[in-house]
Amino acid sequence: MKLITLLTDFGLQDSFVGIMKGVIYNICPDATLVDLTHEIPPQSVMAGALALERAVPYFPAGTVHVAVVDPGVGTQRPPIAARIGTYQVVGPDNGLFTRLYQQAERSGDLVEVVHLNQPQYWLAEISKVFHGRDIFAPVGAHLANGVPLNMLGTPLDDFVRLDFPEPRREAHAWVCQVMAIDHFGTLQLNLSQSELAQCEVKRVVVAGENIEGLCATFGERPPGELMTLMDSSGHLSIAVVNGNAAKRLNATVGQDVLVELKD
Amino acid sequence: MKLITLLTDFGLQDSFVGIMKGVIYNICPDATLVDLTHEIPPQSVMAGALALERAVPYFPAGTVHVAVVDPGVGTQRPPIAARIGTYQVVGPDNGLFTRLYQQAERSGDLVEVVHLNQPQYWLAEISKVFHGRDIFAPVGAHLANGVPLNMLGTPLDDFVRLDFPEPRREAHAWVCQVMAIDHFGTLQLNLSQSELAQCEVKRVVVAGENIEGLCATFGERPPGELMTLMDSSGHLSIAVVNGNAAKRLNATVGQDVLVELKD
Amino acid sequence: MKLITLLTDFGLQDSFVGIMKGVIYNICPDATLVDLTHEIPPQSVMAGALALERAVPYFPAGTVHVAVVDPGVGTQRPPIAARIGTYQVVGPDNGLFTRLYQQAERSGDLVEVVHLNQPQYWLAEISKVFHGRDIFAPVGAHLANGVPLNMLGTPLDDFVRLDFPEPRREAHAWVCQVMAIDHFGTLQLNLSQSELAQCEVKRVVVAGENIEGLCATFGERPPGELMTLMDSSGHLSIAVVNGNAAKRLNATVGQDVLVELKD
Repeated sequence: MKLITLLTDFGLQDSFVGIMKGVIYNICPDATLVDLTHEIPPQSVMAGALALERAVPYFPAGTVHVAVVDPGVGTQRPPIAARIGTYQVVGPDNGLFTRLYQQAERSGDLVEVVHLNQPQYWLAEISKVFHGRDIFAPVGAHLANGVPLNMLGTPLDDFVRLDFPEPRREAHAWVCQVMAIDHFGTLQLNLSQSELAQCEVKRVVVAGENIEGLCATFGERPPGELMTLMDSSGHLSIAVVNGNAAKRLNATVGQDVLVELKD
Repeated sequence: MKLITLLTDFGLQDSFVGIMKGVIYNICPDATLVDLTHEIPPQSVMAGALALERAVPYFPAGTVHVAVVDPGVGTQRPPIAARIGTYQVVGPDNGLFTRLYQQAERSGDLVEVVHLNQPQYWLAEISKVFHGRDIFAPVGAHLANGVPLNMLGTPLDDFVRLDFPEPRREAHAWVCQVMAIDHFGTLQLNLSQSELAQCEVKRVVVAGENIEGLCATFGERPPGELMTLMDSSGHLSIAVVNGNAAKRLNATVGQDVLVELKD
Repeated sequence: MKLITLLTDFGLQDSFVGIMKGVIYNICPDATLVDLTHEIPPQSVMAGALALERAVPYFPAGTVHVAVVDPGVGTQRPPIAARIGTYQVVGPDNGLFTRLYQQAERSGDLVEVVHLNQPQYWLAEISKVFHGRDIFAPVGAHLANGVPLNMLGTPLDDFVRLDFPEPRREAHAWVCQVMAIDHFGTLQLNLSQSELAQCEVKRVVVAGENIEGLCATFGERPPGELMTLMDSSGHLSIAVVNGNAAKRLNATVGQDVLVELKD
């Protein structure tokens, strides 16, 4: 199987994503394509990095992930590809793969990044505004075809990493942040199961609202009520049962949340 | 062909759907995947059931339909799979497959439901909030691979069925309801061709507006005008030519519509 | 490879597109499907034609493009299929393929159109409102299977072409129009690289705003600033760096833009 995933901030109203797929099938006719999402907020490299972190571990070894959230397209930022453990990625060197690098390092997987500089593996004409089509899609297709990473570019050691906000431990609480808001309006916090391993949540304070305790399932609270629970990626989250917490709390990404702990 | 369709209320902004596909390709690398829709209104099991009813008959025999609209995820509601005539379905036991059961019964097809309780066919770790990823996607992939239904669970006889509103016949009219509103703003009513077989529509009254007669095509009325016609699933519908009937009428799902009949 | 693309104005909230795919897989089980976009504004044949023009050239020879933006469905407008150079198209005869015919003529490729009138290649039952499902999807699948065009219909010579607005040259300027607005809010103008070949852009005037010069990349202006640049299809475009030009300018498709030239 030659599995290629696509993640962009291109949306679905234009044919940008379709065009990338046309380019890929020209080079790798037996590719299997999966859309991770194309609704990363425009230019939000951090949101793209977080979405990749959640999705990539669920794909088979050998998958090629092409990701394009690329406000610097056409400037000096290098196009890159990388082998990260058992899979490969292609995209701009702007930090989009930061969380994947960190995941790999935590699990002792090798990270090998190349600066894509072999135009024979690109489209013949390169625009200054759509490297997803001109560089990243063709390189992804060649990787899926088995072209070795080191044919596509030269090693790059000082690739970009972004700093993500980290939760701060206080005496009887964690101060953390809203990292993402999903389709259901649920707030994902940057506080993971491991950080809560030795603690018990007493109360979560967000936007002036107090939410008592930590639930295991949505079923523990009546519809319409605010609740906190561990989400499917192992992070604390704030939801409204059958409702939308982000709208209810008028919440935004980056906003502080106080997680009070029992003694 | 190992055809698997996906229908959810997950939307496309997150990578939830992509993750389910990654899980499927891990188990069934030669699956062919089709998205039915991922924009079922959050938690609307009825809307999911109606969308399945319209789409499923157009798929080849042997297709596996994975459907996840699952407000009760993590609670006692059982995960199920079923053989319904020539195809199979996977999802929560909350009524999502009601209309498919009814379709099958009308055409004399067998319905065989199992309670999924063989965790060796699931992901190793089961969250309380994302059974689409942890149970339904893997089970769908195993079904596509040919694992027999009775290996995946034990027979379940008292599976859930939802009550859908039924049209009410009066002396010279049907009182029916708006069942769904589509992308074009067209209102689909719960009044089917068969219920109108012996009648002729005189006038449809909705939200204080009178719409005379029944058209066969959009071309019979000028742009901007309200009209009624049989939709592609054989139900009466209310549209605005090149416009949006739901916005024009400020219509909502569940709203009553009066269909006056000629004597 | 049997590659079929789909472009419609059906949106993704209903299962219309999924149903078309079910129909295709019934006839051509080894098809590879690509969505160009399903968010063409409802009934906007022109927007569909422009999206096809941008996307089609990036697909492999032999691809079948099924396109359905079809306000005249069910009326006398004929269903058509065409061979255009190395690829084939299927859809309504309402001008949706105008830009592809013109592309082909500019490059000397043959255009051969047939009126689809062989119902044995359609679904058994034909609705008056969903020819995407009943005629175009099945015909696309048969074309992908290798059924020759002339088996599916009879030659049609007077097929429909739409008139698109053309830019007007004045002494020291071009007067052009906004042809499309993309997901990022960038305005695509109907002024191409070739029309600007002998000119140098001095200033672009749009909605009372003056934008000086022409940039090569987004990086040449600070975030939030209006700029003009050549887009990925070789047309002049107006963008806001990391922002949304359409919202900023309250722009609409069809609106005039003045492109002043240096002497």
